[in-house]
Amino acid sequence: MDKIKVILWGIGNMGGGMANMILDKEGFEIVGGIIRNKSKEGMDLGDYLGIERKLNVKVSTNAEKVLKETKADIVLLSIDSFVEGVFEPIKLIVSNKMNVITIAEEMAYPYKVAPEMSEEMDRLAKENGVTILGTGVNPGFVLDTLIITLTAACRSVKKIKAARINDLSPFGKTVMVEQGVGTTPEQFMKGIEDGSIYGHVGFEESIPMIADALGIEIDEVKQTREPIISKVHRETKDVVVEPGMVAGCRHCGYGLKNGEAVIILEHPQQIHPELENIETGDYIWIEGDPNLNLCIKPETPGGIGTIATAVNMIPHVISAQPGLVTMKDLPIPHVFMDDVRNHIKR
Amino acid sequence: MDKIKVILWGIGNMGGGMANMILDKEGFEIVGGIIRNKSKEGMDLGDYLGIERKLNVKVSTNAEKVLKETKADIVLLSIDSFVEGVFEPIKLIVSNKMNVITIAEEMAYPYKVAPEMSEEMDRLAKENGVTILGTGVNPGFVLDTLIITLTAACRSVKKIKAARINDLSPFGKTVMVEQGVGTTPEQFMKGIEDGSIYGHVGFEESIPMIADALGIEIDEVKQTREPIISKVHRETKDVVVEPGMVAGCRHCGYGLKNGEAVIILEHPQQIHPELENIETGDYIWIEGDPNLNLCIKPETPGGIGTIATAVNMIPHVISAQPGLVTMKDLPIPHVFMDDVRNHIKR
Repeated sequence: MDKIKVILWGIGNMGGGMANMILDKEGFEIVGGIIRNKSKEGMDLGDYLGIERKLNVKVSTNAEKVLKETKADIVLLSIDSFVEGVFEPIKLIVSNKMNVITIAEEMAYPYKVAPEMSEEMDRLAKENGVTILGTGVNPGFVLDTLIITLTAACRSVKKIKAARINDLSPFGKTVMVEQGVGTTPEQFMKGIEDGSIYGHVGFEESIPMIADALGIEIDEVKQTREPIISKVHRETKDVVVEPGMVAGCRHCGYGLKNGEAVIILEHPQQIHPELENIETGDYIWIEGDPNLNLCIKPETPGGIGTIATAVNMIPHVISAQPGLVTMKDLPIPHVFMDDVRNHIKR
Repeated sequence: MDKIKVILWGIGNMGGGMANMILDKEGFEIVGGIIRNKSKEGMDLGDYLGIERKLNVKVSTNAEKVLKETKADIVLLSIDSFVEGVFEPIKLIVSNKMNVITIAEEMAYPYKVAPEMSEEMDRLAKENGVTILGTGVNPGFVLDTLIITLTAACRSVKKIKAARINDLSPFGKTVMVEQGVGTTPEQFMKGIEDGSIYGHVGFEESIPMIADALGIEIDEVKQTREPIISKVHRETKDVVVEPGMVAGCRHCGYGLKNGEAVIILEHPQQIHPELENIETGDYIWIEGDPNLNLCIKPETPGGIGTIATAVNMIPHVISAQPGLVTMKDLPIPHVFMDDVRNHIKR
């Protein structure tokens, strides 16, 4: 089997991380890189990534040209969080008969937020004999795939509660703005209202994914977003939070049936939680037969976790039946330490 | 779609538990029951299970007749721990064109302990267009499927250690004998030598399954079995352990590469661990990029977990490609709370 040829579309922190992970693995060849910044047009991908060696791949801002002229098995798409932002790119990739993995959060389970676009992507993927998957650490793994998997040991499940308590400190300015870090409580509430502060993207994906996988009916997904008001001074390289200011966003999602929450996902995200003795971790509580309590401490790292899940799913996606799929449709996910081609079934 | 027709072969604690779980679910029909005890021949399955209602299925000791005369989608086989003990029954089921799920521990990953029989089962399943799966809580879930799944969030994995610390108190006499509970340390060592005490069956399955899934090379699987010598008085309805006597078996499995353990699974099983302040739980430590520490406390229950994983895999097995498969080949496992037929893809 030839090496697995990959195009990276979007080479920021996440896409660049995937490139580096792929360069560390056997059986891959990076054959294309698509970027936004016109001033970097034609740069060698090695230089673009800031690594020591040349990769003999020139990054380009012309996606259509790259996809038309480059043969690849899969495109890793890391440019946007929303279905709307990746819909046209995915159609372009798929019509060039290449598989896609995207970390666009809404693509982890796009059926509820974008039913028509989902149907069109599925149809187009089937017509072209390729597979589309959205994944990432969350949504895509901690607050959905792992919960669903854990229920395998249950005869029945009545209620699911899970929490992901993490530390935003390593992230940059964009994340601070999305999460309202460094605002006053008033600014935070205004930001929630006008949509400039929105917290996590994923509850409208993870909750229906769990419900559909388990055959639990829910009527609606509700969300709440509250400011995490700091009692102490906290700061990162980009933001300073004084006592009384907002250190993050406590974002919760509820899958409701007849007004009762049957799936509850909590995701308080803040900088330096340890300064108020808050332990980070991923927690899953299943109320059922039996009850199960799982924890991962500290939490599964966000950035590395997203890079890893995306790259680790490459063999599963290449091996899959054509169509738009989600993590619940594919074999159990896992790292691969040998040649990626050993994990591909055609 | 017609209801999913199930035959139970082996209706003891585990098979009987599966029957009861199936009776609680929608979309199933139990169409046959195969037992060993000739004095119960022809008894109604409802009476055999000790439930209030008749099921209009007569249990039989004649497996060949039941399998020949009864049309079923799947047979749940709960009669033995070893490939040798289920090989002929599986061939009989498969040649009657029915899928099989067995909780025979060795069948969770039979390729290393029984490569030739595995090949024959795979070939026969493919010829007959049906699927064979071995599963259970362990092997099948806690110390393999869950470990493999957790690595999805890792860029690389160097070493895996996991422990399942459980309580044997609810189990009966057979388990006490297999684990050496109630023996003196001398009797324990003699029992290990002559094979009458053997601890857990599953390390030669879970360790290769993890290694193969992750593409980690190992040269061999080594096992150690030590007596857990009690400092205090412990007892169950079947056995009494005085201080100095054996309360259980500390059974460990090691996947070795060049003499170094890269996969370490520990499974100390004993009665009443709480009497020496030992907390039960399932623990996974992944040394990699990143490190991950997972725990489930208390441990995933053994009996319920085995019943649940077996029944929960029915839709996946019916939907699967023909052949001998393991948990690592199938979509992520999960409970189903609605009609089982909603989870079958043909």
